[in-house]
Amino acid sequence: MQHKKKGGFTLPGEAGYEALTLELANRWGADVIRDSDGTALSDEILNAGYDIYSTICIIRDHNEWAKRNPDKLQMTFLMTQPVVAAESELAISLMQDFFAEQFAVSETPDSLRYWQVFDRTTGNEVPREKWTYDSAAQRVLVHGAALWHTYTVSFLAYRIWEEISMYNHTTNNWDKEHLMQIDPIYPETQEYLLNWLENWCLAHPATNVIRFTSMFYNFVWIWGSSEKNRHLFTDWASYDFTVSTRALDLFAERYGYRLTAEDFVNKGKLRTTHTVPDQHKLDWMAFINDFVIEYGKKLIDIAHKHNKLAYVFYDDSWVGIEPYNGRFAEFGFDGIIKCVFSGFEARLGSGVEGVKTHELRLHPYLFPVGLGGLPTFMEGGDPTLDAKKFWNNIRRALLRAPVDRIGLGGYLHLVEPYPDFVDYIEKIADEFRLIRDLHADGKPYALKPKVAVLTAWGKLRSWTCSGHYHEQPGLDLINVLESLSGLPFEVEFLNFDEIRNGVPDGIQVIINAGTAGSAWSGGELWNDPSVIEALTGWVYSGGVFLGINEPSAAPGQDRLFRMAPVLGLDKDTGERISHGKWPVAAQGGEVSVPGDLTEQKGLYLTDGKAQVLAEQNGSPLAAVHDFGSGRGVYLSSYTHSVQNARLLMDLILHAAKQPASPDYVTDNAATECAYYPASSTLIIINNSDAEQTASVRTDKGTVTQTLAAYDTVILKV
Amino acid sequence: MQHKKKGGFTLPGEAGYEALTLELANRWGADVIRDSDGTALSDEILNAGYDIYSTICIIRDHNEWAKRNPDKLQMTFLMTQPVVAAESELAISLMQDFFAEQFAVSETPDSLRYWQVFDRTTGNEVPREKWTYDSAAQRVLVHGAALWHTYTVSFLAYRIWEEISMYNHTTNNWDKEHLMQIDPIYPETQEYLLNWLENWCLAHPATNVIRFTSMFYNFVWIWGSSEKNRHLFTDWASYDFTVSTRALDLFAERYGYRLTAEDFVNKGKLRTTHTVPDQHKLDWMAFINDFVIEYGKKLIDIAHKHNKLAYVFYDDSWVGIEPYNGRFAEFGFDGIIKCVFSGFEARLGSGVEGVKTHELRLHPYLFPVGLGGLPTFMEGGDPTLDAKKFWNNIRRALLRAPVDRIGLGGYLHLVEPYPDFVDYIEKIADEFRLIRDLHADGKPYALKPKVAVLTAWGKLRSWTCSGHYHEQPGLDLINVLESLSGLPFEVEFLNFDEIRNGVPDGIQVIINAGTAGSAWSGGELWNDPSVIEALTGWVYSGGVFLGINEPSAAPGQDRLFRMAPVLGLDKDTGERISHGKWPVAAQGGEVSVPGDLTEQKGLYLTDGKAQVLAEQNGSPLAAVHDFGSGRGVYLSSYTHSVQNARLLMDLILHAAKQPASPDYVTDNAATECAYYPASSTLIIINNSDAEQTASVRTDKGTVTQTLAAYDTVILKV
Repeated sequence: MQHKKKGGFTLPGEAGYEALTLELANRWGADVIRDSDGTALSDEILNAGYDIYSTICIIRDHNEWAKRNPDKLQMTFLMTQPVVAAESELAISLMQDFFAEQFAVSETPDSLRYWQVFDRTTGNEVPREKWTYDSAAQRVLVHGAALWHTYTVSFLAYRIWEEISMYNHTTNNWDKEHLMQIDPIYPETQEYLLNWLENWCLAHPATNVIRFTSMFYNFVWIWGSSEKNRHLFTDWASYDFTVSTRALDLFAERYGYRLTAEDFVNKGKLRTTHTVPDQHKLDWMAFINDFVIEYGKKLIDIAHKHNKLAYVFYDDSWVGIEPYNGRFAEFGFDGIIKCVFSGFEARLGSGVEGVKTHELRLHPYLFPVGLGGLPTFMEGGDPTLDAKKFWNNIRRALLRAPVDRIGLGGYLHLVEPYPDFVDYIEKIADEFRLIRDLHADGKPYALKPKVAVLTAWGKLRSWTCSGHYHEQPGLDLINVLESLSGLPFEVEFLNFDEIRNGVPDGIQVIINAGTAGSAWSGGELWNDPSVIEALTGWVYSGGVFLGINEPSAAPGQDRLFRMAPVLGLDKDTGERISHGKWPVAAQGGEVSVPGDLTEQKGLYLTDGKAQVLAEQNGSPLAAVHDFGSGRGVYLSSYTHSVQNARLLMDLILHAAKQPASPDYVTDNAATECAYYPASSTLIIINNSDAEQTASVRTDKGTVTQTLAAYDTVILKV
Repeated sequence: MQHKKKGGFTLPGEAGYEALTLELANRWGADVIRDSDGTALSDEILNAGYDIYSTICIIRDHNEWAKRNPDKLQMTFLMTQPVVAAESELAISLMQDFFAEQFAVSETPDSLRYWQVFDRTTGNEVPREKWTYDSAAQRVLVHGAALWHTYTVSFLAYRIWEEISMYNHTTNNWDKEHLMQIDPIYPETQEYLLNWLENWCLAHPATNVIRFTSMFYNFVWIWGSSEKNRHLFTDWASYDFTVSTRALDLFAERYGYRLTAEDFVNKGKLRTTHTVPDQHKLDWMAFINDFVIEYGKKLIDIAHKHNKLAYVFYDDSWVGIEPYNGRFAEFGFDGIIKCVFSGFEARLGSGVEGVKTHELRLHPYLFPVGLGGLPTFMEGGDPTLDAKKFWNNIRRALLRAPVDRIGLGGYLHLVEPYPDFVDYIEKIADEFRLIRDLHADGKPYALKPKVAVLTAWGKLRSWTCSGHYHEQPGLDLINVLESLSGLPFEVEFLNFDEIRNGVPDGIQVIINAGTAGSAWSGGELWNDPSVIEALTGWVYSGGVFLGINEPSAAPGQDRLFRMAPVLGLDKDTGERISHGKWPVAAQGGEVSVPGDLTEQKGLYLTDGKAQVLAEQNGSPLAAVHDFGSGRGVYLSSYTHSVQNARLLMDLILHAAKQPASPDYVTDNAATECAYYPASSTLIIINNSDAEQTASVRTDKGTVTQTLAAYDTVILKV
């Protein structure tokens, strides 16, 4: 039933490779040709009858203006490494730890107002009159330092090399001028950019879509001075790079209180997305979001005035855009593009509301080197295998939730020596269009129960933690999300405010997965008794609380896991070392759990009544605990794999007292399926690198299929 | 040069086995015969010309009086397991969790004044008027409980079965009357016991030494109602069993504030010796110590009046005696007896000041079953091998620090089927007397550096943590102490008050070993900047800070390890998940470290300058970091073995910049030696179960010896 369609595909064109561009546009069914960072399109391509996306990184590529306005460069707070005072006169070099090509000390009087020196041994700020700044040597002198205490300086730095440019330079050994990033917080920058975009639109009549990459503020990427420890801090969703003296001053006017350097540097830990945000951070995020919408809309209006669509790339300088806070529609974007390595990212892109077109930028990127510096389109690389693996991750998510388009990026000419890659992308593109069209007819069949993920962020960080899967592969929640992205459950994201007055109707399972104090587990948010009341009562009435790693952990009361009465287990952090423990023996039988669960030190059964499904060295790895009509379920850790995703599904079904082998689920864990009732269509996918046979029980009997490695079968039933 | 001596040996006699008793007294060179718990001595034994020890457990063996005075039984606070309120009228059964043969609810009006009900979800106490006690059902009714909150009741219980009696009954299936323990805090009890002891002395003219077992208050041992989880709480050095309404009232008078149940139950965690004590606990300990000295002295005076010596057994009901708080001499004891499985316990017994005679009670105890219920003097047991292993542990400690006597305990007749055991004890006894006499001539030669162990308890818990080695085999410090007990270093114990104004002179290495928040690591005591100042300055001037596991850990500032600047590493508890890390590569070479170090999650190098000696999965296991003229040294864990003790010695020598292979140290890690300059005597011991050859470089040349398994060689050099 394969019928070849075209469209929904964005091809990266490349000037100088016109024949290749047009040949592949045809092979891959492209309807759109785009440029990429480092490439350009020629007239021959622009005039070939395709829609044209042009990428604009609005705050970059203005070096001339930037050089004339060095005080309008973007900033960040930096904190020096702690220095021990061996003498009472202590000199602290500001830039010693930082990459001099990325940062320059901002030493204007406005900046200096925001600098802070801390005695980190006491935690006290050093009064202004006790330190001076030696501009010539770029160091702070602390006068009368307490001997043997450690001191830090928090200062404002200009960011003098836009980080994506910096990364691409470094990865590809570019030898171009370093691009700087200007800050639209200043009226002068605003005016300059509006004019610039106006002129750009006039100069690019062939462009149908402006692809903003992205808006103004990059995710946080602080590089260090040592090549041995280059990446000092990396956080895809943090707001440190939105800082400027002007923004801080405007914030103080609007909110009635002034943020300090310490609000950002937080003892050198920064306020990573992985930890529970405080109110100051939430206020700042709202303030920046206001500004990005307000000024971003003016740019989008210009695009629209010139009859161009405005798409936004949901990565790089996306900070402040927030497609999941309910205000995204205010921008007026026509499309959103997400780069994807993994299934959860496909769902992240798919789920954005308030925009018409959802596009995924697939990997591998057409660059010589890819992920973590490994070879892709060069000797030692296997881009076709990479593409298969990435598509394998993403396809199962696309069976559950649709996007409108896919595409590639990079230097198209690099694919020339890889004809099998070209073939495989053709196959992917065809497959994508078939899946997309099935969704258009109606939703895929979903199993009960409806699952919710409870975190400090809730919907704001739907289908993500902070960044790509490979950045924090050990994070339980990102692994859970990757598994859930392709499982046949409806999934919601809740924050603690949303359950305080009762768990929303329809939710049967709540997952809480993360380490103590993390935004994913919830940290101090568990200290609110109304949260405990709502969840405990809800489980008692039949709900399932599925906790992973250190769920509901908050120190200060009798138990670390505040949901211990429901889970039937808790974690000792050392205070119960003299306590006896209930024996832990795996009973198993009813349901299997992943075999790669990690032992948690200090776990113990609270009442001895939990059914332990797996254990190691006397420590529970997985347990089910009846509580009223509901259940508490515990997993010590979770790592995504195709097999574990199936075991997670089985565990969720078991915990929610649903049938163990429901209809429309394959009988082979290496395969998955989705059924689209509106079109009576069943898709079976082989998630493995070997041939697999799978049977699916349907209303109309059992369907059995044999699938080649990584293959997809689409059937009418 | 072996010359057979007698004396310094205490034999457990047994009525009915007179011939055996006297034969073994001769074989083993005993000068003293004792009775034991469950045995008696006959006139034939009493009149055989030996000194006689009689054991008295002063607060036990008074069941008749106890039954007439049930309100004078000893008490404890107990907290029920948390119960979830599924209804607003909540009934909590007091005794559901506890062993009914050990505890009985104390429901006098005096007791009830000290009961507390807590809402553990909020941490708030439930006001008196909101709960009632149903005496008939022994349950507390909480009225108007908050739905889905958890509640606990803390109540006072009488202890109705003395715990050592309970243990011996259970272990040996005794079928005698349960012995109760009466509390000398009441004037009536005091008068009764003084009379009783007076009469006892009159009735036992043959007794030379009263061996008190021990004074009044047992270490804490709370048994549960379920056989599956019998030992709810076990702490050798905690004070929960010293509680009574009268003591609490007296305390309030003396200290001007009243302790509550919560001061003891502490959210159900109790205040274990392994955690940092608060001031309330320290006050209570001082108060109890005052009382135990004051009243204990009256009993000792009676013994002395009858020309009997008073020895105290430093175990069982020892709580409140405190031989290491500087007040022990006030009792006027003539001897102290410590039961020993391990080297650190030998040092614990040896080091007590303010008493003339130090005796060790060796293991195995002459019981059918021993440690953890394993067979000893019965089918399946090998008491000789047990004795060899125990002696092997203790001998190396006795080479470093002397005691005056050794002995055994239990049922002597059990040794009859084990002639090799009898032979081996003869060998031990002879060996012990030789070692003891060498010490009498002068101290053994010690290496530099002088080592101090820094804990929250300092000298008070010299040479112990809380109990026997096998009770907490995973505790780093108990392993360190076991290794140190036989190493040729001088060892001191310091608390945080003692270093606040500077590290005492002469100390070159400070060890801080334990998990975060533990009394061994120091917990919140590290928040005092004067501690950081003193130690940091001291290392800078040449000292060595050797941290193990989570040394100096205290949350709240920029680093978890407050000594991170000295150690060059720190531990992330999740807030630095987005931070990059210095690469960790083991350089090794100069010094070896134990191969069984345990990986610590989250460890990272702070400045990249530490020399990593061992690593696992990119996490440092051992590192040395230069700081000024001194060094910070880190080990992720420590487990005692003969081999690791040698590696610890090497690491200490290396860190303190001492020669790597000093004189008077064997060249074979399976062996150790001690040199006694006053008598020019060298003892070499084989700590292994195989023949070993060892060479020792001395002032007069190198000595080489081959030793049989577990053997000892004593040489003039």
